[in-house]
Amino acid sequence: MPEFQNILDNIYIEAKKTVDKGEIASYIPQLACVDINNFGIALFDKNGMLHSSGNTQERFSIQSISKVLSLSLAFNLLGEKLWERVGVEPSGDPFNHLSLLEQENGKPRNPLINAGAIVVADILVSHLKNPKEELLQYVRKIANDNSIDYDKDVAKSEKETGFRNYAAAYLIKSYGNLENDVETVLDFYFHQCSLSMSCEQLASTFYVFANRGKCLKQTQHLNLSQIKRINAIMLSCGFYDEAGEFAYEVGLPGKSGVGGGIVAVLPDNFSVATWSPGLNEKGNSKLGLQALEKLTTESGLSIF
Amino acid sequence: MPEFQNILDNIYIEAKKTVDKGEIASYIPQLACVDINNFGIALFDKNGMLHSSGNTQERFSIQSISKVLSLSLAFNLLGEKLWERVGVEPSGDPFNHLSLLEQENGKPRNPLINAGAIVVADILVSHLKNPKEELLQYVRKIANDNSIDYDKDVAKSEKETGFRNYAAAYLIKSYGNLENDVETVLDFYFHQCSLSMSCEQLASTFYVFANRGKCLKQTQHLNLSQIKRINAIMLSCGFYDEAGEFAYEVGLPGKSGVGGGIVAVLPDNFSVATWSPGLNEKGNSKLGLQALEKLTTESGLSIF
Amino acid sequence: MPEFQNILDNIYIEAKKTVDKGEIASYIPQLACVDINNFGIALFDKNGMLHSSGNTQERFSIQSISKVLSLSLAFNLLGEKLWERVGVEPSGDPFNHLSLLEQENGKPRNPLINAGAIVVADILVSHLKNPKEELLQYVRKIANDNSIDYDKDVAKSEKETGFRNYAAAYLIKSYGNLENDVETVLDFYFHQCSLSMSCEQLASTFYVFANRGKCLKQTQHLNLSQIKRINAIMLSCGFYDEAGEFAYEVGLPGKSGVGGGIVAVLPDNFSVATWSPGLNEKGNSKLGLQALEKLTTESGLSIF
Amino acid sequence: MPEFQNILDNIYIEAKKTVDKGEIASYIPQLACVDINNFGIALFDKNGMLHSSGNTQERFSIQSISKVLSLSLAFNLLGEKLWERVGVEPSGDPFNHLSLLEQENGKPRNPLINAGAIVVADILVSHLKNPKEELLQYVRKIANDNSIDYDKDVAKSEKETGFRNYAAAYLIKSYGNLENDVETVLDFYFHQCSLSMSCEQLASTFYVFANRGKCLKQTQHLNLSQIKRINAIMLSCGFYDEAGEFAYEVGLPGKSGVGGGIVAVLPDNFSVATWSPGLNEKGNSKLGLQALEKLTTESGLSIF
Repeated sequence: MPEFQNILDNIYIEAKKTVDKGEIASYIPQLACVDINNFGIALFDKNGMLHSSGNTQERFSIQSISKVLSLSLAFNLLGEKLWERVGVEPSGDPFNHLSLLEQENGKPRNPLINAGAIVVADILVSHLKNPKEELLQYVRKIANDNSIDYDKDVAKSEKETGFRNYAAAYLIKSYGNLENDVETVLDFYFHQCSLSMSCEQLASTFYVFANRGKCLKQTQHLNLSQIKRINAIMLSCGFYDEAGEFAYEVGLPGKSGVGGGIVAVLPDNFSVATWSPGLNEKGNSKLGLQALEKLTTESGLSIF
Repeated sequence: MPEFQNILDNIYIEAKKTVDKGEIASYIPQLACVDINNFGIALFDKNGMLHSSGNTQERFSIQSISKVLSLSLAFNLLGEKLWERVGVEPSGDPFNHLSLLEQENGKPRNPLINAGAIVVADILVSHLKNPKEELLQYVRKIANDNSIDYDKDVAKSEKETGFRNYAAAYLIKSYGNLENDVETVLDFYFHQCSLSMSCEQLASTFYVFANRGKCLKQTQHLNLSQIKRINAIMLSCGFYDEAGEFAYEVGLPGKSGVGGGIVAVLPDNFSVATWSPGLNEKGNSKLGLQALEKLTTESGLSIF
Repeated sequence: MPEFQNILDNIYIEAKKTVDKGEIASYIPQLACVDINNFGIALFDKNGMLHSSGNTQERFSIQSISKVLSLSLAFNLLGEKLWERVGVEPSGDPFNHLSLLEQENGKPRNPLINAGAIVVADILVSHLKNPKEELLQYVRKIANDNSIDYDKDVAKSEKETGFRNYAAAYLIKSYGNLENDVETVLDFYFHQCSLSMSCEQLASTFYVFANRGKCLKQTQHLNLSQIKRINAIMLSCGFYDEAGEFAYEVGLPGKSGVGGGIVAVLPDNFSVATWSPGLNEKGNSKLGLQALEKLTTESGLSIF
Repeated sequence: MPEFQNILDNIYIEAKKTVDKGEIASYIPQLACVDINNFGIALFDKNGMLHSSGNTQERFSIQSISKVLSLSLAFNLLGEKLWERVGVEPSGDPFNHLSLLEQENGKPRNPLINAGAIVVADILVSHLKNPKEELLQYVRKIANDNSIDYDKDVAKSEKETGFRNYAAAYLIKSYGNLENDVETVLDFYFHQCSLSMSCEQLASTFYVFANRGKCLKQTQHLNLSQIKRINAIMLSCGFYDEAGEFAYEVGLPGKSGVGGGIVAVLPDNFSVATWSPGLNEKGNSKLGLQALEKLTTESGLSIF
């Protein structure tokens, strides 16, 4: 096993020296006021040992990273039937996801683009009695951490500015692929995106995907086939139109969020989470990507 | 001047004999219960004389025909500045108007597709104190008929099923081209589409576009340049992706609605309205198109 | 009848004073060396009288204007069957005509975009013994002018740089909508585009479309239904994505070419041709458009 | 190490029993006459030991599998500069690759779609003295097998029917992203696709991608960074719009060809090649996919 703590410390030092940290996402007002100088990286190795460096306990908005967690819960509930309502192929498209939705009659390409996550949200709203409550319980259970919670201000802020998500939801509904009210589904979706977690909490939560479905306390939450499917989707679709680049530079299944977080896993080896709020022009955390590249390069560990 | 009454009577007889009347639009529940056997045609000649045949006094939902009237009012209010928010080119596209909206950053191609009419509705909502009330007064004034009114049941029915219009409105709003709430704008828009008018009322209303801006009572409502612009838009964009076909078969500026109505004008000559609820596969009234083709062929009058 | 000669003289004087003449098309090397200061306008009135002002006898490359002439000949040969291979709807699209071709399985939107004209060229190559020779004879006959000819240097220049046309032709062939060799079809097409004509010759040739199918010598070349169809196509599709603008500003069926020529007709009234090599950003002659707008404004004649 | 020979034998037995073998590609006439009952699977393990079952020595047309080999050679020649002319992102698109080319101004999405492989071919034509000869030598060297050769009949057959490839090449050239003649580039490209190899030869050739750049004779042909990049591209882009499905079902970087071949590698573990000419509706070998899924399931080996 590599000297993870050393590697993380070097990554932190280098991150602190980097001048160009990218740009903070501005379209969600609540996210715009985060300090760009935050940087943290936390990793759980195959023995469940934590290694970390930087602000790894401060919480931030996990945003799109939450899509993996809602997918995981919906996959548990529906099994393979899930794929009748959402695909598993990369969208290959930076921008016009509504065009794709029209071309493909309202079935989103995959569950990690917004349109796909909205369909997953609809499924959870249909199948759960108290959707927001139950998703929160699910995340807390996998993470073994009852302090995880939604950030209601962020959820409200997204609701007031998320016109594109409304457009996607209504378009999906016009094709008959949304069972519930748009308002109800998006209320759930905006809450899910507003989950507030630290690097340590994220790395702990995603340990389940590195550990064949078992969390740090060795409780089985997903079976091996489900883990394989979700990891494959993260690798193919986790980074929008930078998925190919990430597959090469980092070589791990992972998922980013506009809050500046990135999680990644190496099956049977480790889960890792980084946080740096500045984004590159593709919407992924700039220093986070560099950190993960450095991690796989220095440790010599990747799927390739 | 041709023997209009004779021509209209022949058109009516032929329409009655036609077996294949097309299909009634089913996506707005309130429209689905209209009797497909209705047929009417009404024409005002250059002297303001009415010629008509069939059910020309029964009212039906004018739907998209209303887009010309709201455009006319908005053009009066804004003048050429209107074209900063909506284009004047044909969309050339049967289906994916949201794709086009994305490609063109939220500026709809023209005011006669749904997306464009929604922007026009937004403009009216911004500029009028009581938008629904004032549009109704405007139409009544041009038509010289105070009995014209909205059909609230149709408006409500559209609101409950108009998911695609919601998608378009939110997408436009995400590009900053909608000033008001989506709900407010669409409430206005659905009312506008629900205007209930007969063939005679429609022909009377559109006389203004055949008569250089003056209504049947010779009051000036639009100037010549405005009339020319709106007629050009009707000719290029009035029939979705059947505009080219209509320009050839009929050769008149016009506009159709899914309620089965069609209006058309020959500048300096006549305005005409037909009603037959069955639509062809492009969404235009099947017998209405045949009637107008017969009218221009038999009268020898068209713009070409 | 308006004082055409006066109007044309005023147009000429104003054109000469205009500083911003647009940009000469540079992608066909042979066209790039034309003097931008050329300007001419020629009109045949309903009595067949010529009115003209400026360089109306100098010949230039008519380019896409030729598409109307090849369409006219193909329509004569095939009749309504022509529309099985090419549509009649505006493309509404400035740029990606290959995308549209893919969406619509190799059937071009209309005969006045390049892809459509290539299909028309294929039809002529299939139906004529000596296609290039016979098209030339056809044009000479309508124009009553045996001096009209191809410009072989221009044809050669286009062949060497026309990669996009090759792409379109091969794509059409991949869908089975091209019967002949791509090379043979494009050789014909590039020759057709290279036709070299003056404003007077163009106005004379297009008189047939203003005069219900009869040329200046009153020989019938097309019937009334054919004329109506072609005029409708010119109005809807003659100016790429500026068709809607042209329909409004000028209000006449017409066609432009990148050589700087524009022709237009007012049925039963006149045919007109302008030449000014500078183009606007949509690829239509800048001063030509202004001239035609002035013509319809000052004469009070348009289809609307 | 798993009992590979046992697993392969079981795969072979099951394949023989499967009734629905998919459909043979018909668009290249020379490929249409292959016997659909052929089935072979060959694997080199980490010790360089061969395991095989079925027709593993019969040669077939490797088609698109060759794109990995030409990419490998071009990457060797140009290094990272290669990515200025072709991307590394999945296209996510089953069909309209020409649309994407237009949207992205002639820079293909990745080197494993046709358009991208044509750009790679152009690079090789520019950089090699005898491109066809030198590519062949390169493949023979990696494979340690001088009997590998082109199938000239297949190459000729593709040339006569490859209209879509001509369309792509001309479109790329129109954007200035093709240095050489379309004819020259496609002649090279069609030859490359016509490479005729057996499962054993393919598994032997691709051993280099499983063995950190060293072939079976332990000669270094690519460095580790290059191997990582190419494996990442195979995983993201190797199976057209079935890439996401393959990533999940099989979980290995790989590449398919319409000749019915598939290659895949597990880094540091094995290279494998299958052949079964029947394709599924996405154009990938039906039994080949099933075989590889069974291989990773039974061996418990995949990247996830």
